[in-house]
Amino acid sequence: MDPAQDSALRAWLATQADPHLLANPANTTPRLTDERGIYSGTCIAHLRPASTAQVVAIVEFARASGYVIVAQGGNTSSCGAATPTRPNTLLLSFERMAAIAAVDVTRQTIEVGAGAVLADVQAAAALAGWYFPLSLGAEGSCTIGGNVATNAGGVHVVRYGNMRQLVAGLEAVLADGSVISNLPALRKDNTGYDLQNLMVGSEGTLGVITRIGLKLSPALPHRGVALIGLADADAVMRLFDALSAIATHHLQLFELMPQPLVAATGGTQSAFDAPWAVLIELASGEQGVDFPGMIGDALAQAELEPDVAVLASSEEQCAQLRRVREAVVPAQNAFGASLKHDIAVPLDRIPAFLTAGAAAAERVVPGCRPLPFGHVGDGNLHYNVSQPVGMDADDFRAKTSDMQVAIFDVVVAHGGTISAEHGIGQRQRELLPRYKSAASLAAMHRIKHALDPAGIMNPDKVLLSSNYFV
Amino acid sequence: MDPAQDSALRAWLATQADPHLLANPANTTPRLTDERGIYSGTCIAHLRPASTAQVVAIVEFARASGYVIVAQGGNTSSCGAATPTRPNTLLLSFERMAAIAAVDVTRQTIEVGAGAVLADVQAAAALAGWYFPLSLGAEGSCTIGGNVATNAGGVHVVRYGNMRQLVAGLEAVLADGSVISNLPALRKDNTGYDLQNLMVGSEGTLGVITRIGLKLSPALPHRGVALIGLADADAVMRLFDALSAIATHHLQLFELMPQPLVAATGGTQSAFDAPWAVLIELASGEQGVDFPGMIGDALAQAELEPDVAVLASSEEQCAQLRRVREAVVPAQNAFGASLKHDIAVPLDRIPAFLTAGAAAAERVVPGCRPLPFGHVGDGNLHYNVSQPVGMDADDFRAKTSDMQVAIFDVVVAHGGTISAEHGIGQRQRELLPRYKSAASLAAMHRIKHALDPAGIMNPDKVLLSSNYFV
Repeated sequence: MDPAQDSALRAWLATQADPHLLANPANTTPRLTDERGIYSGTCIAHLRPASTAQVVAIVEFARASGYVIVAQGGNTSSCGAATPTRPNTLLLSFERMAAIAAVDVTRQTIEVGAGAVLADVQAAAALAGWYFPLSLGAEGSCTIGGNVATNAGGVHVVRYGNMRQLVAGLEAVLADGSVISNLPALRKDNTGYDLQNLMVGSEGTLGVITRIGLKLSPALPHRGVALIGLADADAVMRLFDALSAIATHHLQLFELMPQPLVAATGGTQSAFDAPWAVLIELASGEQGVDFPGMIGDALAQAELEPDVAVLASSEEQCAQLRRVREAVVPAQNAFGASLKHDIAVPLDRIPAFLTAGAAAAERVVPGCRPLPFGHVGDGNLHYNVSQPVGMDADDFRAKTSDMQVAIFDVVVAHGGTISAEHGIGQRQRELLPRYKSAASLAAMHRIKHALDPAGIMNPDKVLLSSNYFV
Repeated sequence: MDPAQDSALRAWLATQADPHLLANPANTTPRLTDERGIYSGTCIAHLRPASTAQVVAIVEFARASGYVIVAQGGNTSSCGAATPTRPNTLLLSFERMAAIAAVDVTRQTIEVGAGAVLADVQAAAALAGWYFPLSLGAEGSCTIGGNVATNAGGVHVVRYGNMRQLVAGLEAVLADGSVISNLPALRKDNTGYDLQNLMVGSEGTLGVITRIGLKLSPALPHRGVALIGLADADAVMRLFDALSAIATHHLQLFELMPQPLVAATGGTQSAFDAPWAVLIELASGEQGVDFPGMIGDALAQAELEPDVAVLASSEEQCAQLRRVREAVVPAQNAFGASLKHDIAVPLDRIPAFLTAGAAAAERVVPGCRPLPFGHVGDGNLHYNVSQPVGMDADDFRAKTSDMQVAIFDVVVAHGGTISAEHGIGQRQRELLPRYKSAASLAAMHRIKHALDPAGIMNPDKVLLSSNYFV
């Protein structure tokens, strides 16, 4: 990457008269490889726009001069969606568009720039007495623009829905340089096609999201957290059904973890010996809700006697139990190389899928160790498979595609999806046509071509570019 | 309309071997004029498909033989969205695709055919112990297909959102005869562009919706309803703010009505003399919630002493008070001809908008009587203006366009929208370019052209056909 070698780019940069627009190369290098170290790319320039007008200028320059655009937030994509694939890439990052406005009390929203870091938005909302419920492992570095572009999920979807449900309105720059916006957002507006939701989850392939109005919820200061050990997946789902009915307005987290991962997190849970652990969080705005009683009632109704049950009785204990769930992700490293699948199946198919998935994985790599965990209350599991003990890590990684097809075939046979929350990016783009209907895929290609006829917006992601034009 | 005169159509109908496909002309005539008697059209044939496959066959025939498609549900559009505009129209109705499946308890959804009547779906959900919250005046005749196509609103949006938030998944036939579907729906699925939400609110211009999975809510058998008289719009909004905070999880209806309309409903309210009436409904799944206490607390917090306050103390009284709101719609007839506008502004602009809107209406027709009512908790008012006493009704109706522009200009100046829930249809299509940004409109045109290049899906609605192809 050397913009100085490119005369068109050099000339255009001079017109912008913004010494901070071109990034310092030291800041660029980490952005050219994805977080998991699987995808790498290059770019002709890494630009840091400071305004929507500057994004428009960049897009118009790219279109006129044969560059493509890759917008990157915190570079935390799990599917290579934000890693450039082409040398003529203008890589955009948004740290100069990270402003967080004051809470709009009338609308119950907060307007932020695309580059605002999720944790900063959570903190700003909390400081004003509100709650922004999106919560996921990368929240300390991922940005709202990326969260919207990928329709991020996380641990509170069971109560609040995905990012899609949390967006009140947005502004985006399309491939022709035009700016669409429904900000500041109205609660009701039936004046045409839903461009907002078309942008959400499009992974930067239809436009660059520049500004977002986020829906806030009332603060829920009163919480109850529990870690419960159960014998099998059927017991897990029975507990979920009972708790959903008993704590309808309170249940906001219901996560599944397998025993080996819980034990590997160390600390107080290193002796955890039930096959499955369920982490539960209930929350309320009102004091005095009997969370332990609700959990006890749900266990009784589901006719379960848990092997282990840790109920937090203080804020500190709540935080400690939640850290177990966070620690599960790095704990996978103790098991060597891991092949990862972000899938969802209908809730009633979870037990059958777990059995069939394990059998399918075993057929691909005998002795491999499935360690599924995640948002089981949404039907969403990170169905990650660790290598067999003693196998060479690269030999195991060479089975990535075989394992994907094996797991995804089982997922789809159980009525599920090959990407619940991580998206398609580069990781699943070749496999998408195997699992998505030809009709839906054709409609997606038509929309892509209609809004980005030259294919300059995040090319080679989601859709295979050879098929852009149908 | 005489399909017998059209040899291509006659030949195709013979291939379908379905004696019930072509409607009896007696059933067709009422479908050629909209409910308000403003729009009329004609069609070459009125078809009643019995399956998605038959809708596909109709669309493929239309495309091959130069017909256009108008899908019509209960013919209750308020903007002429379901009335044909072209003589070569195949008018589709869905009374043979009205099946309501059993509640899917795992997914908490109910799958229905496009022709299912809203009230029947409400009843089916209730019978199974669930609640389908969409509720609007036309619920006895409007269909779910139409509700989805228009992103219907109604009285419970303040709690449950528009139809968009109530759709779990859908199936639709596109203009090329392909069928897109995400049924049965998953809670999470990030495998590409959001085709579901693109269909919702597209008013039949992008495809024909054939089947829908609807989200159900827990039943809320315990209700409290109140009718409260207030002196001005500022008091109304203060009460809304206080009640939203106090009864966050219970408030599901907050409707505004002006004194003349309430009085005109007759019955026990004929002596209602406060300038504004607010109808409130709180609901809970749990017994013993103190609804009157919450309303009392909200009035105290907002420092209001209402002129009138009727709190229902029985189911029958609740139903009686809700009937006042329903009776307000026909009560408008007592005031002669009415020019109707379905607008929304931000909540904090409601009082200023009401003042400015009345002044604008007075400038267009001196002596006219604005009688706004509706879903003020969403910022949505049916800003209807009745004729001056003694004016000729047709002379007043001749001011339709002038009044629209005058009101809409004020709406947009207050940050609002010219269509909150009714849609664009034929009624606002000429004015849409005045109020919608050129960028958003161009993106809509591109999407329309991409998915329906020949313009066969509900032509002349939402977008002006002369501009389809940009």
